[in-house]
Amino acid sequence: MDETKIAVLGTGGIGRRTLELMTHKSWGTPVAACDRYGIAVDHDGLDVDELLSATEGNLASERDGDPSTDGGVAVKQSGPDKGVVASEQAVPTETPIDDVIAESEAIDAVVLALPNLEHDFIPRIADRFVAAGFEGVLIDVLKRSRVIGMLDERAADFESNGITFVCGAGATPGVLTGAAALAAQSFVTVESVDIWWGVGLKSGYADNRGTVREDIAHLDGYDIETARELSDEEIEAIIDEHDGVLEFTDMEHADDVLLERAGICDAEAVTVGGILDVRSDEKPTTTTVTVTGTTFDGEQATNTFELGDATSMAANVNGPAVGYLKTAVQRNRNGIYGVFGPTELLPGF
Amino acid sequence: MDETKIAVLGTGGIGRRTLELMTHKSWGTPVAACDRYGIAVDHDGLDVDELLSATEGNLASERDGDPSTDGGVAVKQSGPDKGVVASEQAVPTETPIDDVIAESEAIDAVVLALPNLEHDFIPRIADRFVAAGFEGVLIDVLKRSRVIGMLDERAADFESNGITFVCGAGATPGVLTGAAALAAQSFVTVESVDIWWGVGLKSGYADNRGTVREDIAHLDGYDIETARELSDEEIEAIIDEHDGVLEFTDMEHADDVLLERAGICDAEAVTVGGILDVRSDEKPTTTTVTVTGTTFDGEQATNTFELGDATSMAANVNGPAVGYLKTAVQRNRNGIYGVFGPTELLPGF
Repeated sequence: MDETKIAVLGTGGIGRRTLELMTHKSWGTPVAACDRYGIAVDHDGLDVDELLSATEGNLASERDGDPSTDGGVAVKQSGPDKGVVASEQAVPTETPIDDVIAESEAIDAVVLALPNLEHDFIPRIADRFVAAGFEGVLIDVLKRSRVIGMLDERAADFESNGITFVCGAGATPGVLTGAAALAAQSFVTVESVDIWWGVGLKSGYADNRGTVREDIAHLDGYDIETARELSDEEIEAIIDEHDGVLEFTDMEHADDVLLERAGICDAEAVTVGGILDVRSDEKPTTTTVTVTGTTFDGEQATNTFELGDATSMAANVNGPAVGYLKTAVQRNRNGIYGVFGPTELLPGF
Repeated sequence: MDETKIAVLGTGGIGRRTLELMTHKSWGTPVAACDRYGIAVDHDGLDVDELLSATEGNLASERDGDPSTDGGVAVKQSGPDKGVVASEQAVPTETPIDDVIAESEAIDAVVLALPNLEHDFIPRIADRFVAAGFEGVLIDVLKRSRVIGMLDERAADFESNGITFVCGAGATPGVLTGAAALAAQSFVTVESVDIWWGVGLKSGYADNRGTVREDIAHLDGYDIETARELSDEEIEAIIDEHDGVLEFTDMEHADDVLLERAGICDAEAVTVGGILDVRSDEKPTTTTVTVTGTTFDGEQATNTFELGDATSMAANVNGPAVGYLKTAVQRNRNGIYGVFGPTELLPGF
């Protein structure tokens, strides 16, 4: 396919891995990246190696409490050039997202690798792209059910503007919801979809604090708002209490609404849970999708999809994100606009 | 989605199950079915129950050696009303496919549930739809690699005529190739895809003789041409020799070219095999897709997809076929024409 020019909003763990993964893909080129401190743009293609190595390490524990651009938590914070500005390709700015939008006529797809501490944060970013007349792909790796409805409310705007929005295109929802949609094909009724994930995050912990914070919102006694207010020290204390291993059940994960939206089963038939170990890179449990249903010839059976334990969270989030991005760009170029979940698209490669 | 009017060419095992499965789907209506003896058309919707029960049982062992319309081998052959003509909705005809084509302006999608004993049989059927100016979906459940190239040669014709052709949309290729495409998302390079199937066909054997004949072509010492010439008695003798259990390795299955076409791996990296037991309904082995690759962060791992042993071949062929048909109709209505493999589409539900 024709070259795809990609912007990455947020250079935290997910944004950084998206940039790195794109160096393996011949069909796409990262041309813009930003965090809360600055923006790097080169329409001939960013030097991803320089950008990543210049901004790696020396991680800040400070948070300025402003989640509006994010990404900064995982990149270099010391010296005069904070965050992405440590790269020689970047310049400081107070308005990083507006600066990317200003370049968006030459951008095919935007990866929203931003945290979603407020439910409507990603939808509001999308509004800004609509207002600026952006035509192309927006993609996120969101995990929260209620955001899907907010995006659906904007579907008409996306359609009239030529935007193809793919929501929840990471691991779960994302590749695992897609696998559930495939596994459902043997059946005429689907009784249950169980998504169970294992993540070992020892070496990737510092790069994925935002994700851990989002996960903590799913623990008993916490929600999005209380998790957002936690200091890093409080998060460490929660992790210590659990000896580094956090188990989650009945998570509000968008898999449920995305499977219902695709007509595969009721949202109530979907359960999502998993185990996160921040002190080991070994997965504490095997990531598995289990789909139980009844065939047209009356048999009840269970189909399963398993990710190998050696695949990292990063590989399972960013691989699908980039794959769905490719499919979305093809759709967009075919004039297909609106909001799509991973249950409606098979990712490209 | 808007109602989809469906024609089924061939009322052998696959065609009959497609008709039956559509009774579970609110979005589509079978309006035409044919076999070599006749055609049934009702643009308001066929009475599928009547058609299936009128033509069930009393299976013929005769073959007239003419595979040009097929389907007849699995339906009633006795009395004056052979094949589909046993249904009160059907009329005899010498030209069943042309008769369906004559109705095709009111048809959205055509399921080609025909055998492919000659490599170019399905492609030549497609040519006839092109010549008649058909606009809509053509879908097959073919299993042979070299047919994909023949269809690709026709891609420009399909595109200029408004035809969306989905090839290999059954179990394998089909849902299992789609699963391989999803499983590949964790990786940046895919070293191997191994598709291994188990089929237990005791109660479905009579309905699936065409499929068994196609499988025998993959045994050592046989090919498409020699399998085509076998009498039913010779096929029985081969089955007896193997005590009813046939094991296949290194099959020429279109999964390989379809995965290469999607850029996932070289065709040579794909192996397909399986075990067919015609004397038991229990699967002799669990159908499994195994995808081994290397992640962007350098780990080698294996992802797997398994179909529950209680799912029948019919459920795993026809469920995906109908699912891919739904997706193809949506594509067609969006003006996306040409040839697509199951690695490029996530099936609908």
